[in-house]
Amino acid sequence: MLKNYLKEKRELVDTNIERYLNRLEYPLVIAEGMKYSVLNGGKRLRPILLLMILELYGKSLELGLPIAVAIEMIHSYSLVHDDLPALDNDDYRRGKLTTHRKYGEAQAILIGDSLLTHSFSLIADESKGVSSEKLVKIIGKVSRYAGINGMIGGQMIDIESEKKQVSFEVLKYIHSNKTGKLIKLPVEVGAILCDATQREFEALSKYSELIGLAFQIKDDILDIEGEFEKIGKPIGSDLELQKTTYPSIFGIEKSKMILKETIVEAKKSLEIFPEEKLEVFMRLAEYIGNRES
Amino acid sequence: MLKNYLKEKRELVDTNIERYLNRLEYPLVIAEGMKYSVLNGGKRLRPILLLMILELYGKSLELGLPIAVAIEMIHSYSLVHDDLPALDNDDYRRGKLTTHRKYGEAQAILIGDSLLTHSFSLIADESKGVSSEKLVKIIGKVSRYAGINGMIGGQMIDIESEKKQVSFEVLKYIHSNKTGKLIKLPVEVGAILCDATQREFEALSKYSELIGLAFQIKDDILDIEGEFEKIGKPIGSDLELQKTTYPSIFGIEKSKMILKETIVEAKKSLEIFPEEKLEVFMRLAEYIGNRES
Repeated sequence: MLKNYLKEKRELVDTNIERYLNRLEYPLVIAEGMKYSVLNGGKRLRPILLLMILELYGKSLELGLPIAVAIEMIHSYSLVHDDLPALDNDDYRRGKLTTHRKYGEAQAILIGDSLLTHSFSLIADESKGVSSEKLVKIIGKVSRYAGINGMIGGQMIDIESEKKQVSFEVLKYIHSNKTGKLIKLPVEVGAILCDATQREFEALSKYSELIGLAFQIKDDILDIEGEFEKIGKPIGSDLELQKTTYPSIFGIEKSKMILKETIVEAKKSLEIFPEEKLEVFMRLAEYIGNRES
Repeated sequence: MLKNYLKEKRELVDTNIERYLNRLEYPLVIAEGMKYSVLNGGKRLRPILLLMILELYGKSLELGLPIAVAIEMIHSYSLVHDDLPALDNDDYRRGKLTTHRKYGEAQAILIGDSLLTHSFSLIADESKGVSSEKLVKIIGKVSRYAGINGMIGGQMIDIESEKKQVSFEVLKYIHSNKTGKLIKLPVEVGAILCDATQREFEALSKYSELIGLAFQIKDDILDIEGEFEKIGKPIGSDLELQKTTYPSIFGIEKSKMILKETIVEAKKSLEIFPEEKLEVFMRLAEYIGNRES
């Protein structure tokens, strides 16, 4: 059931990504490079989370589609820049050449910049039926969560923490900012779009924080126990890079226990909502803990 | 008189840049790198243009300061990324080490990303006394003028046009997008903030387009006739790079004539406004044509 749900939503997101990006034509390398970088077979977890909130409140998905696409574009730009030679220097992502390997390095820098810039245009120019007050609030949140006090901050500290063991505090900062903020973002944006009460907002925010954390712990575990064929990248790269991870701090068994507890807590955080509306939220939390890729 | 006016406004802009950037603390290298990249002794032409419009309409400068700073931050991010080894590979800018030479290449990419991202936070979170409707309109314009159909587009075509002579059409595209859009932007944003009529908006937009063009033609001429000590970069670099410029298409004398005509036209475009309010606009247009750096 979850699988079909995710597939259906992923297709809706992909259709809209194409719809918005197909309008861009010139310069060709930027327009094509933007499409190439976003249409990469990703899970679309972030935009789907936004759509899940809209459905939870019985709102039209149209309301959030431009913002959902914008958030995915921000996620994509961060991958394009992370893959650059000066950062992770990766040649492949999901079995396809990385953007700079395909289009050149200068081009990839500009393609990433363009994705980030264009995401704000999508939110401001394409959102229909959302009040300007809400849009300003959402744009502020998007830029804060994606910027120095969010994703970029996490990415910087992650780079600085390579090849050394850092404290659990620093590891938590990296997780909650580098990947966590962009998982929290669509959920909190959805809550704003749906006029969630303060209590509901906090419950949803907590859920997103915990599944973001679970996602990260599972990533760390898969890097040790995963299968190359399934996760599509070499196993053991964290160990090789001497990265601080949950297993490196707590050991593998304790990490699995923390993961389980995090999933339980994530599910519990939504108990203020009617149970019959939560199936996909519950299943998604479980999926994040059990996924093999 | 213009000199004092520009100095006074530049100081106001710099004070506000510091005020907003001093709030950022962590990660240190990003916070410091953002300040280093923006506080570089620049002319502040773009933010000053926005303040000039506010004064023309007798509005409080406070109204536009966060947006003025945001636009300068976008200008700075574009320089940080342009200077990178994969693009212009410059070691110095205004006599100081470029951001990647000072902080490292990965850091400079993230510092640029952070400046761009944070600029939207400034507009959305810090603007006081501006309606949300106007802010959404302004954010849409900022992202369009800075993105694929604006500055980034111009930058990409400029890169593609290196070491070859391109048509006058392509040269105009590069000028009006790479540098032109970010000069037009603060003027049009100012007009929105001041509720300019359609006719006034068009007059102001025309003025900004023409001074942007004049700025660029003058740049091309200075690259041939300027003095190294004044412009702070080697003379003749366009020729060496076989760049298409106004002089390369029209010759130096004809280029000077076009520059003069452009300045005259720029000044004329504002004739619908009361003459006594235009002194700084007239002097700025002349300054752009006569500057030696």
